[in-house]
Parts: sequence; C-alpha cells; structure tokens
Amino acid sequence: MSKDLTKRADDFSKWYNDIVAKAGLAEHSAVRGCMVIKPSGYAIWEKMQQTLDKMFKDTGHVNAYFPLFIPKSFFSKEASHVDGFAKECAVVTHYRLKNADGEIVVDPEAKLEEELIVRPTSETIIWNTYRGWVQSYRDLPILVNQWANVVRWEMRTRLFLRTAEFLWQEGHTAHASAQEAIEETERMLDVYAHFAENYMAMPVVKGKKTPNERFAGALDTYCIEAMLQDGKALQAGTSHFLGQNFAKAFDVKFAAKDGALDYVWASSWGVSTRLMGALIMSHSDDNGLVIPPKLAPTQVVIVPIYKGDEGLAKINEAVAPIKQKLEAKGISVKYDNRDSQRPGWKFAEYEMQGVPVRIAIGERDLQSLTVEVARRDELSKQVMPIEGLEQAIEKLLTDIQNNLFKKALERREKTTHTVHTFDEFKQALEKGGFVSAHWDGTPETEQKIKEETKATIRCIPLNNKQESGTCVYSGKASTQRVLFAIAY
Amino acid sequence: MSKDLTKRADDFSKWYNDIVAKAGLAEHSAVRGCMVIKPSGYAIWEKMQQTLDKMFKDTGHVNAYFPLFIPKSFFSKEASHVDGFAKECAVVTHYRLKNADGEIVVDPEAKLEEELIVRPTSETIIWNTYRGWVQSYRDLPILVNQWANVVRWEMRTRLFLRTAEFLWQEGHTAHASAQEAIEETERMLDVYAHFAENYMAMPVVKGKKTPNERFAGALDTYCIEAMLQDGKALQAGTSHFLGQNFAKAFDVKFAAKDGALDYVWASSWGVSTRLMGALIMSHSDDNGLVIPPKLAPTQVVIVPIYKGDEGLAKINEAVAPIKQKLEAKGISVKYDNRDSQRPGWKFAEYEMQGVPVRIAIGERDLQSLTVEVARRDELSKQVMPIEGLEQAIEKLLTDIQNNLFKKALERREKTTHTVHTFDEFKQALEKGGFVSAHWDGTPETEQKIKEETKATIRCIPLNNKQESGTCVYSGKASTQRVLFAIAY
Repeated sequence: MSKDLTKRADDFSKWYNDIVAKAGLAEHSAVRGCMVIKPSGYAIWEKMQQTLDKMFKDTGHVNAYFPLFIPKSFFSKEASHVDGFAKECAVVTHYRLKNADGEIVVDPEAKLEEELIVRPTSETIIWNTYRGWVQSYRDLPILVNQWANVVRWEMRTRLFLRTAEFLWQEGHTAHASAQEAIEETERMLDVYAHFAENYMAMPVVKGKKTPNERFAGALDTYCIEAMLQDGKALQAGTSHFLGQNFAKAFDVKFAAKDGALDYVWASSWGVSTRLMGALIMSHSDDNGLVIPPKLAPTQVVIVPIYKGDEGLAKINEAVAPIKQKLEAKGISVKYDNRDSQRPGWKFAEYEMQGVPVRIAIGERDLQSLTVEVARRDELSKQVMPIEGLEQAIEKLLTDIQNNLFKKALERREKTTHTVHTFDEFKQALEKGGFVSAHWDGTPETEQKIKEETKATIRCIPLNNKQESGTCVYSGKASTQRVLFAIAY
Repeated sequence: MSKDLTKRADDFSKWYNDIVAKAGLAEHSAVRGCMVIKPSGYAIWEKMQQTLDKMFKDTGHVNAYFPLFIPKSFFSKEASHVDGFAKECAVVTHYRLKNADGEIVVDPEAKLEEELIVRPTSETIIWNTYRGWVQSYRDLPILVNQWANVVRWEMRTRLFLRTAEFLWQEGHTAHASAQEAIEETERMLDVYAHFAENYMAMPVVKGKKTPNERFAGALDTYCIEAMLQDGKALQAGTSHFLGQNFAKAFDVKFAAKDGALDYVWASSWGVSTRLMGALIMSHSDDNGLVIPPKLAPTQVVIVPIYKGDEGLAKINEAVAPIKQKLEAKGISVKYDNRDSQRPGWKFAEYEMQGVPVRIAIGERDLQSLTVEVARRDELSKQVMPIEGLEQAIEKLLTDIQNNLFKKALERREKTTHTVHTFDEFKQALEKGGFVSAHWDGTPETEQKIKEETKATIRCIPLNNKQESGTCVYSGKASTQRVLFAIAY
C-alpha cells in the first residue's frame, strides 16, 4: 500500500489527502464542503469523544442538547458576535417541498416569517435559554456541554481541518462572578492541553489570542496551539471568557446573596473533528497513519503466518490465550486470520491504518514460544517470548505513547525560532515552525506582518516571560515575545 | 413538589407535560417545534445511547457520520421515498447573511444553485455514498450506524414524542442477498425489542406494518409497538427491509463471486429521542418520573436526617463507606447532604426525578446500624441493616427493574381486547389499549376504520396465529387477527 502514498517531503498536502483516503478516514460528499466520516475515522473520533466526555464530567459538567436552528434576529443581539458569525451561514428559508408536475420544488407558500440559521456556534440560542434557568445565585453555576454538528459555509475546505459541517463539543457555562468564569475558562484550557498532550501525544502551547484573533463576543480567548510536521501551526482548541456580553444581549440576570441583581458571567469552549487533522499531521509518516495507543481503536493486531488449514488451526489455538490475556489488560486486539489476504498485504494495511503494535506469529514461533512484535511508531521489530507477553505489550504501548509525544516535542522545539530582526523573522518563517518575536502590541503591526508574510500571532503564551525588547517590525518598545506562525 | 403535578386520571396529557417540565427533562425552545433537552433528560438519553451503541457493536456494526444536508434532487431518485419525505422539510436556500444598513439580511447573491434539505432521514445521501464503497461481494456487508439529528417539519409537536428536530440513530446496511438483508432487518428488530423490554422495562409487540404504514421506500417495515398508560400505542422503533430500491435509485451494484453484477440489498433501522416519551408514559406516576434502574443516571440517592453540623458530620462519616461499597458494585449513588434544603423537600424532589432507590439515614440509625430504604416504583419503605446493604440494594434494583416490566406487561395484557364485531371494536377502543381483530387485509378497509375511529393497524404481530375469521368491518374472510389502537 505505502508505495502509493505521496511522500511528505514531496507534497505534504497531497500526502495528507492520501492518508485520509487510504486509511479510510473520511471523504468528500456530494454536498459541497461536507464530509463523510468513514468508520475508521469515526472510531478514532469516538475514542476522543469518550475521553473528553469523561474529563468534562470529572470537572463537574453535564451534557444537554440545544436546537440546530437559530432565529436570524438572535445574531444581531450581541454586537461583535454578529460580525464574526452572521456571515457564511446555511440559511433555512422554507419548510416545505412540493411536487410540481413531477418535479420536486420548494413550495413558495411555505416561506418562514423569520429565516433560521443552521448553528455555526450556539452562544445565542443557549443564552436565550439560560434566561429561563437563572433567577438567583443558587441556580449558578451552570456547567453544560453539548456534542453537536455545526455549519460554517467555508469556501476552501479540507477534510477534517476545515469543512462546512463539522462535529464538535461546545461547553457553555454561567457563573455568579467574573473570577469564577475566568477560572472555568482556564480550567477547560488545561483539560484541552492535558488531552492533547497525554492522549493525542501532541505538545501544545497554551496562550491567549490577541484582540484581533479573539472569538467574536469574547473578552478573552485562550487557545492551545499545535505545531504540525510541515511547520504550520494549528489552533487545536479554544476557551473563551465571555464576560457579561451574552447575558446582557439576552437579559440573563441573577439575584446575588445580598439581593442585588447583576448579569451572569460566561465562558464557552470547544474542540472539533479538526483534532483528527491535527492528529494525522502530528505523527503519521510515509507509510501511513500513526495513532497514539490511547486513541487507537485497535491497539494490537495479530497476524498469523502459516501454510494450509492445519497450520492455521495450530496458530489459531495458540493465539486464543494470547488475545485473551491482552484483552484482560484492557488492550484492544484484532486477530486477522482471514485466508483471503497474504501476510505481507496485511502488514502494509495495518501500517497504513496506524495500528500501534503488530504481532506476527508463525509455525516456528510455536516451537520457540516466541512472537515477532513490530511497533508502528519506529517501524522496528523484536522477538518476544509468549510467556508474559501481555505485560511486555502493555509496557510497549506506554513506550509508544511517550515516544510519539517526545518526538513531536523535539520537533516543535527544533522548529521554534527566536528572532531579533524582521529579516530573521522572515527567514525563520520560511523554515517553518513557531517564530518567537517581540511585538509592539498593536493590531496595526500585527495586521501588517500578516499582510507581508501571512504569519499570524498564534498566541501570547501563558506565563510568558516579561522582558523589554523592540518589536521586530516597528522597532517600537515591547514587553514580551509572542509566537507567530503560518497556520492552518 | 408532587402536589403541583396534574394527576394522570385528570388530564394525562397535562400530567405528561408537567413531568417533563418538573423533572427538568426538556423544554420548548425559541425555534418552533425544536426542543431543548435539559441535563436531566439528556443523562437518560445518554444511558440509552450507550446501551444501544454497545448492542449495535456486539452485533458487528460500526459508526460513521454522513452530511446533515441532502441535495434536493436526491429525493426524486426513489419514487416512493420522495412522497414520504420530500414534504415538510427544512430547506436551505442561501449560504450567506449580510449587514444592510445595520440590519442582518439574507444576501440575495448567495443563493444556492440547488437547494439543500436538512436530512429527515439519510437513505439517499448514504446510498449515494455507498456507490463508491462497493465493487464486489468482498466489500459486503456494510454494517454502519450513525447517531445524528434529523428534522421533520411537524406542525403539531410534543416534547420528545414529536418534534421538528430530534436525535436518533439510523443504521444503514448493505448486503449481497435479500436473505441476508432480511436477517439483518429482523436481527435489529430483536435488538430493539430486547432493549425496550430489558432496559426500558417496556413490553413491546414485534410485528410488521401494513403496506399503508410502511416506511417510504421499504418492501417491509418491522416495528416494536408499545402500549402506554393512557391506552394509546406508540411505535417505539422500526427496522426496514429496503430490497434493492435505494441501490437501484443510486446505482449501487456489486460483482458476485461468480462475477455476475447485481444491485445491493439494504436494510435501515432507527430509534429516537421519542423513546424518552415512551419511557415516561410507561412507568411514571402522580408523584413524578419513574425510571427503570438500568437507565437511571442516579440509581440510589442517600439523604441524611440530622440536627446541626455535628450531627451531619457523624452521618457523613457513616455514609462514606456505604457509598463506596455501593459504587464498588457499579451502582451510581448520589449523597445529597446540602444543608440548604430540608429532607422532606429532597424526598419529594428525588421522587419527582424518578431515582429508583432512596436511602434515608438519621442519627438514631447510627445506633441501630440500620437505614430506611424507599423504592420509587412502589413508594414503599423498609428498614435494612447497614451490614450487607450493598447486596440488598443490588437485589432491590433488580427487583424494581423486573417489577416495572411486570406491571407494564400486566397493564398491557389487561388492556388488550379480543373483539369479534365492529361494535365490540369501538367499545374496546374507548377503553383504550390494543384491539385484536380480524381484518380483511385490504388498505381500503384499513383506511375506513381509521376514518371512522382514528384507530390504525399498529402491526401484524410476528408469529401471528393463522386462523380463519371474518373482518370486523367488512365481514369479508380474514386469515389472522391484527392489532389496532389509537396511537401517538
């Protein structure tokens, strides 16, 4: 299989498309910009969902579900939100089709009085709902998440990374104080960073967005930024402190303990199927997909090497207890003893699909009581005794998980450039990676740098060192370095 | 709380609305016909989802995700499907809004060439996709399910039972033979029936729909029919044998082992958030919601009865090991030691919310080493020793689960009327419940009975006894009885 795969060095973008296609993760649909998430891709997304959902619940959140449609007028209620989101949207204008002389047409008599927007994000409909849920401080906090589909009519789409419809979760919380809402915003950023680093094995920089890059309607947008193999950055998750903006727009007030009425404080936070793109571009190689063990639907595949039915029967017998012991450790195992494909084909196939560990077992292994174990991350093989194999594999999976993170971290560190002049800045950008540079803090400079280089400020890292310096572009005084990059 | 609840005998419909509101399960949204599923409701739906999802996977299915939007022309491709579904739909006609003199309006220049329909069901978009997935018999079967939202523009809506947008799962499978597709259709009906009876504690009749009531595009529609407390029936799940209809409409062919090309055979099957309505109407009472233990997000609530902080501290200490031992059994437990509400309020609240078991523990109980255990289904109480409480509660939860099923089954049997004449038929209908009657097998008679009585044929039960008789309406010859009822 891998010989059909474009090499990263030749064309990274085509390599990505090839992997998504050949590993059966997703494909374009008949509807412009909308993807089909195929079973192999969806299985990884489900692992992400389950992990995140548990983390949300462990931090006190509950799930709920709000309508797909938002009345058009809701977007006008929060001034900056409308500019950000009331643009490229799917608009429902009618509610009936009819058969006109054998042709299906939209029934002009079934025009909606007010158009409905397919949600691009749900702050408006949710805060309109919260008005009925909150009277006093006793009703707070509200810690709600929803798993949902959203639609943003993107013109240039890319499977997983940018699609018109995508799947995501959006947390929407309501609090009695700014302090509490900010703590929540930061807590969820930490949850995202923990997930990215410990499950996706993808190092991320936690930071704040500049005002230019803020979520429309937020007072502060926090983000986690990842650095992919092609030297481009990707915003992998955001957490917003919304202040009282949506509470004011939708008139959500609460009575404090002392009886005083005040508007409710808010956060919102989300990650999406975009993480699938980030995962692929973080670890995969010229042989196909590489999935960190903690997110791999199948962690271990066992392939028999045999001659004839009798040979296979012997191996089947030997594999049964091995599989059972691995599964007893909570490891997901697939035994592929299909006779219709040769072992070499299977090896290439599971490499393409990114299964972290492959165990090959032949008739001679039955004598020596060993198996051949291949790890996907390093494409290396070793012989292991069957006795105690489950412990060895368990440890190997942990090693692979850690190794993937370590490699990605080393790559990021190697491609993070600290620069002092705009020439250095531009040279560094060409190499790819993050560029750490002094910036004068003005939106004008940020905009000019973007126009000249396409680089954007990915974030102002949290706990950034404060130091005096001069802006690489304007030469004006600066108090800290920020991270620039070309981004997806 | 319960004193505010309408009684079932007074107004069943209002009682239902009251429960949904007071147990915090769902509410109407600002968008016509669309509901907000609130955290308490969503938690039950999540339990349903998890259980069903595991059953689907245990029967070999995988999840995937297909687009929300369907091109209008797709509906015209399957002749009977279009009549059934290309009616009350949400139609997307534009993809952009713009700001016109401070007002947000739909941009007339952003009109779609072809309108998009928000999926009412996904056969068309999925079979259009399967065309690319299937070449030979080796690619079959495809056993795919998706969890998704769908929209049908209902004019008269009811929370959970009938809403414009609802959540569901839809399985779509592709097979190399009619036989295999029929087996799949029947297998999934069995899965639904098993879920309804063993998890929802809701007895169902498995049967086939008459041609009149079939899914638009199916050769055969199987269903599970439930009987609710008000004597009305509810279709709780359907499984369709689609023949080659969609394969023909979307040109999905496969090469058989012998090389011959043929169209692929299909099934589809689904259950939705409608099951929430069925659950509520099956078991709940004049004190509020009743949830079968297997679907209860909280199975046991512990309420302390105490005086002062010191009293509470003692009880807290005694409860910790009890809670731990229950949780070690896999029982979900909530300890509500909030000081802001009195025990009586909590008792009523958890009754309203349908928590299956309530444990009250007071300071005197600490002496006697006992607790008071109340079961929600019977509203009865007993004293139990703390020693071995976890075993006793585990057994009690099983008893409650079984008792709810038994009561519902007895109710259904008591309200299933076998009739011989049309007068008896009409009298039976007035009492409510299923009416088992001979029917001449014609759509005309079925239609006339519906017009005169509002009763529909809920199903022709599987494994129905074949017996000769005369149709209650037409007096013509009949070969079997079928089940009529007034239905939701």
